[in-house]
Amino acid sequence: MGQETIYFGRFVSAPTPDELLIRTGAVLVDSKNGKGVITKADWTIDGPNGAVSKFGVEAPVVMPKDNGFFFPGFIDTHIHASQYPNVGIFGKSTLLDWLTTYTFPLESSFGNVNSPMYKDSIEPPDPLARAKKVYNRLINRTLAHGTTTASYYATIHVEATNLLAEIAFKKGQRAYIGRVCMDRPETCPDYYRDESTEQTMANTKASIDYCRSLDPSGELLAHIITPRFAPSCLPETLTQLGALAKEEDLRVQTHISENLNEVKLVKELFPEQKSYADVYDHHGLLTPKTILAHAVHLSKEEMRLVKERKVKVSHCPASNSALGSGFCPVRELLDEGIEVGLGTDVSGGYSTSILDAVRNACMVSRHVGFLNEGDSRYNLGVAEALWLGTMGGAKVVGMEGRLGGFAEGMLWDVQEINLGDVDVRGQGGDTDVDIFGWENWEERVAKWVWNGDERNVRRVWIGGKLVHERR
Amino acid sequence: MGQETIYFGRFVSAPTPDELLIRTGAVLVDSKNGKGVITKADWTIDGPNGAVSKFGVEAPVVMPKDNGFFFPGFIDTHIHASQYPNVGIFGKSTLLDWLTTYTFPLESSFGNVNSPMYKDSIEPPDPLARAKKVYNRLINRTLAHGTTTASYYATIHVEATNLLAEIAFKKGQRAYIGRVCMDRPETCPDYYRDESTEQTMANTKASIDYCRSLDPSGELLAHIITPRFAPSCLPETLTQLGALAKEEDLRVQTHISENLNEVKLVKELFPEQKSYADVYDHHGLLTPKTILAHAVHLSKEEMRLVKERKVKVSHCPASNSALGSGFCPVRELLDEGIEVGLGTDVSGGYSTSILDAVRNACMVSRHVGFLNEGDSRYNLGVAEALWLGTMGGAKVVGMEGRLGGFAEGMLWDVQEINLGDVDVRGQGGDTDVDIFGWENWEERVAKWVWNGDERNVRRVWIGGKLVHERR
Repeated sequence: MGQETIYFGRFVSAPTPDELLIRTGAVLVDSKNGKGVITKADWTIDGPNGAVSKFGVEAPVVMPKDNGFFFPGFIDTHIHASQYPNVGIFGKSTLLDWLTTYTFPLESSFGNVNSPMYKDSIEPPDPLARAKKVYNRLINRTLAHGTTTASYYATIHVEATNLLAEIAFKKGQRAYIGRVCMDRPETCPDYYRDESTEQTMANTKASIDYCRSLDPSGELLAHIITPRFAPSCLPETLTQLGALAKEEDLRVQTHISENLNEVKLVKELFPEQKSYADVYDHHGLLTPKTILAHAVHLSKEEMRLVKERKVKVSHCPASNSALGSGFCPVRELLDEGIEVGLGTDVSGGYSTSILDAVRNACMVSRHVGFLNEGDSRYNLGVAEALWLGTMGGAKVVGMEGRLGGFAEGMLWDVQEINLGDVDVRGQGGDTDVDIFGWENWEERVAKWVWNGDERNVRRVWIGGKLVHERR
Repeated sequence: MGQETIYFGRFVSAPTPDELLIRTGAVLVDSKNGKGVITKADWTIDGPNGAVSKFGVEAPVVMPKDNGFFFPGFIDTHIHASQYPNVGIFGKSTLLDWLTTYTFPLESSFGNVNSPMYKDSIEPPDPLARAKKVYNRLINRTLAHGTTTASYYATIHVEATNLLAEIAFKKGQRAYIGRVCMDRPETCPDYYRDESTEQTMANTKASIDYCRSLDPSGELLAHIITPRFAPSCLPETLTQLGALAKEEDLRVQTHISENLNEVKLVKELFPEQKSYADVYDHHGLLTPKTILAHAVHLSKEEMRLVKERKVKVSHCPASNSALGSGFCPVRELLDEGIEVGLGTDVSGGYSTSILDAVRNACMVSRHVGFLNEGDSRYNLGVAEALWLGTMGGAKVVGMEGRLGGFAEGMLWDVQEINLGDVDVRGQGGDTDVDIFGWENWEERVAKWVWNGDERNVRRVWIGGKLVHERR
């Protein structure tokens, strides 16, 4: 491939919460120095040849199929890569028992041969082989689902975390990799925790160094400081992690107010702080580069603090429903001026797909509306939920203006969507989205949102580079 | 194929709400007189040859793949076949405006050339061609999703309704076909209603006759009396439909208490009855063969009436969430002793898949639990939700003991499920269910429930006949 590519056809995006923008046109993408930036965009061009002459370049033209369109890549602002094998395995648990029953055993198996998960294993434990299999598959799956950027939690293990970084980097996904920090003995199992603040910091630095060795620019791959959540870290660790994030100018991710018992636990463990948000603030972890997952049960005061510190929120609706955590008041967060994106929260969430998160965000918002006397103001529509999954996500990961749309200067992190046709005998494409022919384009996009899956994702590019193609 | 077939391998079913039964064994299915009944079942047989000798017949042996199993076909107790093209198209509407904005225009286009849906159409209106295309596709899709029995709403049009009956019958699906009755001028649009009680009754009888002409036994295909819902029918029509159902010993289906404004409307339209349920009771429509869809907002008293009349309930969680209707108190209904099955409620529900309804039933139940101080007693687990989608559905459609399991005497209405493997490079099957190899079978079933779709349905049989095979 040369340095430039023209993409011509239908482009769909959600530049604002209220607007589904559906246009035909062309963009020119420049892949010099490997960045893949949109250098020109023109919404008057009505054919591939027109694009070539309008842009004045002899570049190859890439087009979606007739029933297809380009859509910004999804941004998953909260996903536990190591938990992927557990998707769907949560029984009737809620957060705190879910962690000890399902999550810690699995995560520990990525680095500890004495993990409870190996207890009944016939084959000898091989943590790194397991990590390799899981991470390879997970990155393949998220790419297939159109996730071009993801903020990952790995495990506490440096080697396995570095492996995740390497796999994501090789496959070309834009990824923030978090080595999980957890070292408070009262709340972490013996078989799965850092030994001390010193070890936590040393291992975190080792992982930061490794990510920088792969991508010194931090453009495609960067470490993200990851205290699991307040209860799992020694107070001194929280303080040092906050300082490190500041020193190294790194993103931070953690959890907040997902579950009422968790909120209670934080109150008990940090009696001196006046709220859960205040615990993080006290330790210097509320920064404009911080992603807080969940935020289901924040008080008004906490929301204001989050807003004031320009902290971002990852809304994980599938997880909140599956674990019975509650109803995230997304409209209130947005009204407060807080920046919100979507997260799959695998495996609290059962799906690796942000399109599924888009659906669940819509569904949960209707529940919130119902609980507020049917006030439809709480409703997230298709456009707004897609906006959360793209533009919202871009803000959350600090890539506002660079990801989530098709404006000049933005990165070509894009998925090509294809929808199915139906003939009179009832035959159609091998997807769950059936287009009968009379639907307008807004309706077609809605049909994709509600029944689409990775079969509708034909190709995925990140930084102008093709990273996934369906069969 | 001969008259008998042996099915050998892993069988999964949910015979009770608390139990996921996972067994290896074999069953013998007799297809004499076209019924496809399980005549023998043996859970000690450990190989295909063992099955042949144990059963003492020279019959072909059908087996799932290593990662596969037989599972009872799903029963969709509430689905509007005609609304299939609208799946996912509902914007921010709730029930009553959804009907007038999206639903009546589409349904009317199956028989009325002046339907609003044809207003901007370039091609000349051809209602039956449309019905043929939609119904062929819809039956193909529901079969692909493993739905072996469905209770369908068509439209008010006799010809198009008969076409649905014919297509379902030819494709071999067990189907109850309802011509929709709606004739109350204040609530039904001029372009889409029966003219009078007389016309409603005559058209209903025409559709009953047609179904009987196709399947005199009513085993595979039967008409189901279908007053749309109380507000859309003249009181006299409700009375006559009740009498007809009794006279002809037919199933009845309608809607109840889906949405709070609907409940209010019923109160206004039927001031003399003391509740929504009482309206139906008053008109003789609450029978042991009646399926009430939704039942989200029933009072305790109504629940008791429903129980007393042995009426069944179709729980449609996806629809209730998508249209912001509320939270169906499934646990209360079950505790009351009411029989409950699952419905997709296409296109209030966005999906044709009962597996999706299983998921949504689990999710909504967790919301109900959260709203009841986190009481996990409200939770529907995977087993119970699968039970609702199979055994529960069998009770709802009056086929208890004949559908939903693998006991001797039951019909071979079964789907063969196949799950995907993952190799170390992250390659795997082309589905969204990834089995890593260390999961036990209960966990594998959970993974299927949460991320499965029609790609996991390899073959489907109804009454012993193969009706769907994946490529």
